[in-house]
Amino acid sequence: MKSYRKELWFNTRGRRGFINITPQVQQCVEESGITEGFVLCNAMHITASVFINDNESGLHQDFEVWLEKLAPEKPYSQYRHNGYEDNADAHLKRTIMGREVVVAITAGALDFGPWEQIFYYELDGKRRKRALIKIIGE
Amino acid sequence: MKSYRKELWFNTRGRRGFINITPQVQQCVEESGITEGFVLCNAMHITASVFINDNESGLHQDFEVWLEKLAPEKPYSQYRHNGYEDNADAHLKRTIMGREVVVAITAGALDFGPWEQIFYYELDGKRRKRALIKIIGE
Amino acid sequence: MKSYRKELWFNTRGRRGFINITPQVQQCVEESGITEGFVLCNAMHITASVFINDNESGLHQDFEVWLEKLAPEKPYSQYRHNGYEDNADAHLKRTIMGREVVVAITAGALDFGPWEQIFYYELDGKRRKRALIKIIGE
Repeated sequence: MKSYRKELWFNTRGRRGFINITPQVQQCVEESGITEGFVLCNAMHITASVFINDNESGLHQDFEVWLEKLAPEKPYSQYRHNGYEDNADAHLKRTIMGREVVVAITAGALDFGPWEQIFYYELDGKRRKRALIKIIGE
Repeated sequence: MKSYRKELWFNTRGRRGFINITPQVQQCVEESGITEGFVLCNAMHITASVFINDNESGLHQDFEVWLEKLAPEKPYSQYRHNGYEDNADAHLKRTIMGREVVVAITAGALDFGPWEQIFYYELDGKRRKRALIKIIGE
Repeated sequence: MKSYRKELWFNTRGRRGFINITPQVQQCVEESGITEGFVLCNAMHITASVFINDNESGLHQDFEVWLEKLAPEKPYSQYRHNGYEDNADAHLKRTIMGREVVVAITAGALDFGPWEQIFYYELDGKRRKRALIKIIGE
């Protein structure tokens, strides 16, 4: 069994933002030399998400509006977590979007359906944060 | 390390539907000859889900009502994604239900608790779509 | 490839409760002797969750309030699943929180960001229930 590890670092200008990391994950698969296995891709922070969905800006705006309805950022005082912090909503939003994805590797490539793309979704940005790529297989 | 791959294809009559794929996943585990490992089971489409829960029709109706409340299908115009499409709600509903499950294989069988069953949940059907079964282990 | 399996058992006094299982999962990793691989940690019951987030009691109270808003426990009669049972809300709440996590193992330890902690979240307790730890790797 072989394994491979890489961290991807991000620093978004705004509080929230979508970053398509599919090309970087594909490059990791190539670098790993693993042709059959699993790749785990997870946010290493608890106010960010890694998820798979469409690379379509209208849908990303829909996610923003929808998550703000399900877990509003303000008023900050509605959350007990917001004593010294203001990011309780980011913890909740990331829970809906998910921490991680596991993707199959087949014949040396991400084994994806036609529209699957991997996104890092920053929900409490303006600082350096990261995702983990870990691959195991042969 | 051994690996195994299979696609399961579906074509639901309605826009939405639940399909219990546990027997098919069990058969894949048997075909793989893998006795210790992980099986990844994921929707290959971004408007469908693979999830684990109860095989109980009342609960499935509850999921339908609940998801329609959290991410309503109509009016279509409420979503920016719905320019040429009408399935934005399916992208959101699948986000709540999840894209994938990872299940342990122990002694050649799915290592499940008493009521765990795997479902493919079609959220934008009436066409051929598929799930991926990928197994690694020994 | 090596593999390791353990069940963690719980019996919460109340209907709902958070249990930090990070130390137990770390101990499993050590016992396994696996230094590079994946650990799968999943609830074996469909009314409980395993998730990763902050070990902060204010946030846990926020989760409680938030899930009760998104999937209220009562009135029981609002759910079709609640014929002979009263736990439909637990099935829905666990769906939002997630069934499982997959965590990378690197150099013999859980490969975590600064605040990641693993929780078993009981949503229908007052009885013995369990989570599965399964590790594969080398």
